[in-house]
Amino acid sequence: MKKFINRVDDVLAEALDGFDAAHADIVRVHRDPTFVTRAASTRTGKVALISGGGSGHEPMHAGLVGMGMLDAACPGQVFTSPTSDQMLAAAQAVESGAGVLFIVKNYEGDVMNFEMAAEMHEGRHATVLTNDDVAVEDSLYTTGRRGVAGTVVVEKMVGAAAETGADLDALQALGQKVNGRTRSMGVALTSCTVPAAGKPTFELPESDIEMGVGIHGEPGRRRVKLMPADALAEEMIGAIAGDLRAPAGAEVLLLVNGFGGTPAMELYLMHGAARRQLEAKGLTVTRSLVGNYCTSLDMAGCSLTVTALDDELRGLWDAPVHTAALRW
Amino acid sequence: MKKFINRVDDVLAEALDGFDAAHADIVRVHRDPTFVTRAASTRTGKVALISGGGSGHEPMHAGLVGMGMLDAACPGQVFTSPTSDQMLAAAQAVESGAGVLFIVKNYEGDVMNFEMAAEMHEGRHATVLTNDDVAVEDSLYTTGRRGVAGTVVVEKMVGAAAETGADLDALQALGQKVNGRTRSMGVALTSCTVPAAGKPTFELPESDIEMGVGIHGEPGRRRVKLMPADALAEEMIGAIAGDLRAPAGAEVLLLVNGFGGTPAMELYLMHGAARRQLEAKGLTVTRSLVGNYCTSLDMAGCSLTVTALDDELRGLWDAPVHTAALRW
Repeated sequence: MKKFINRVDDVLAEALDGFDAAHADIVRVHRDPTFVTRAASTRTGKVALISGGGSGHEPMHAGLVGMGMLDAACPGQVFTSPTSDQMLAAAQAVESGAGVLFIVKNYEGDVMNFEMAAEMHEGRHATVLTNDDVAVEDSLYTTGRRGVAGTVVVEKMVGAAAETGADLDALQALGQKVNGRTRSMGVALTSCTVPAAGKPTFELPESDIEMGVGIHGEPGRRRVKLMPADALAEEMIGAIAGDLRAPAGAEVLLLVNGFGGTPAMELYLMHGAARRQLEAKGLTVTRSLVGNYCTSLDMAGCSLTVTALDDELRGLWDAPVHTAALRW
Repeated sequence: MKKFINRVDDVLAEALDGFDAAHADIVRVHRDPTFVTRAASTRTGKVALISGGGSGHEPMHAGLVGMGMLDAACPGQVFTSPTSDQMLAAAQAVESGAGVLFIVKNYEGDVMNFEMAAEMHEGRHATVLTNDDVAVEDSLYTTGRRGVAGTVVVEKMVGAAAETGADLDALQALGQKVNGRTRSMGVALTSCTVPAAGKPTFELPESDIEMGVGIHGEPGRRRVKLMPADALAEEMIGAIAGDLRAPAGAEVLLLVNGFGGTPAMELYLMHGAARRQLEAKGLTVTRSLVGNYCTSLDMAGCSLTVTALDDELRGLWDAPVHTAALRW
């Protein structure tokens, strides 16, 4: 295993130290328990948005804390749910009188721990569960569809609405709306390597790829031979668009998300390929995001996410944001 | 070779198509010859900044075109200098009466072609050569030190000054000043794979790393066994700081640059490690940038860049920027 680390047990703590130091103007990393908040306090009367999940998906979620997105994030150990203690401490730190909205990716550990934290938290709270991955119905770590890179879109749009003073019920409904209009699917060219394991999570022969892979390296739909980018995009967009069922002429956002080991040149090439597939189905891409947003450590691969826009969602996407990973 | 591509010959053109579509609000990709400009025309009386070089280093340079940085970039084929035709066409497209400043990384092909373009260009022009890599004195593709990730710092600071109306001579002097106060060094954990070659550029056994690697996979100082992050940072910052010779108490910018295949978690961990080394030498890190900015295709590895700041350079770094890859 070749990684920039000192001791395996210290990876998360040391990475968070570096993150804290690099972005002291935007975030604050808290310890015992571990959570990340904005450097500035949550404005009184603003609903506090909190997300979290296993580490290894950076910049999700700590890199999405800041003006226009999250108020706090709870990073668990690598590919392991954060504890309810972390979530409760985060909620208590950022709650400012208007309640807390938890945005949770659909994995059993995360769902269970966020439920426990919500029960322990005495203030008003609600939850939005994301489950945008169309690859498989059930998976290694979850019942029902997995929440993946579409969560970035949910956090961006709900975050923008929270800044304008929307209340807890409205934000929960908005989060459910965005999730309901969002679909994703991923493909792995290589495995990832969890530091504590020291070896690749799964074996993938030099000629094969994992179509529909999960963001922890969980199995996808099928293992196939490497295909040209256009064929990959055709299969992935076919699955996404077939499930999304947006009417011809609909306007969509396209997120091409790298899994950590794939360079920008290939992601942009995939963006072009995916866009052509969407256009062939009569959909118009009016907003794009290309880069590493919901990663799987050092996995080579990418996911495609499509969100059906309307005037409300387009406006929320375009609203200003200032986080470590997303700024405009 | 596992990559998101269709045909090897089309990689660059298709990646640029995707880049163009994803960032139509910021850039415009031109063809025959190929170059990238801002979507908006260069303001009359503003010096036009142009850079370029082989592709495979994305987002450098096309992702650094936009308000506050470059006016145009010329992408060559992968790891191959752009032609003087590309540079000349870019210069003619963005020249607006105040002259053109070429920012060129020190590689023989780039230097030669930019010189030819400068001779053919009839307007006023000047050049800044970057050579921030302290790893080796001469290398596979150049005489003298290589220009690497420090070029991002030069382009950011000179770009900010150009927006305020600084003239050609002042910008050239500023670029030379920034380059003179900037040092970098890289390390490779793996090779990269050039699409047209179809196999890794060099062989690196599972236990070894290339200390001082170049951004095309050129040899560095020495091949050593994998070390902990702290030991890597100690050697790299030792070489950088020993060469930079900033006085104790000096204020510095620290850029931790990923080579394309290294995830954010490891880069942030390296940021913490490098920062500790700088602080032990009495230097204070007041500005940071962590991410993939000057890459080597899919290479796992990173480089560290340190720039000695003063009030002028800190202000130019903080000035607003709006490009595909850098925004604040």
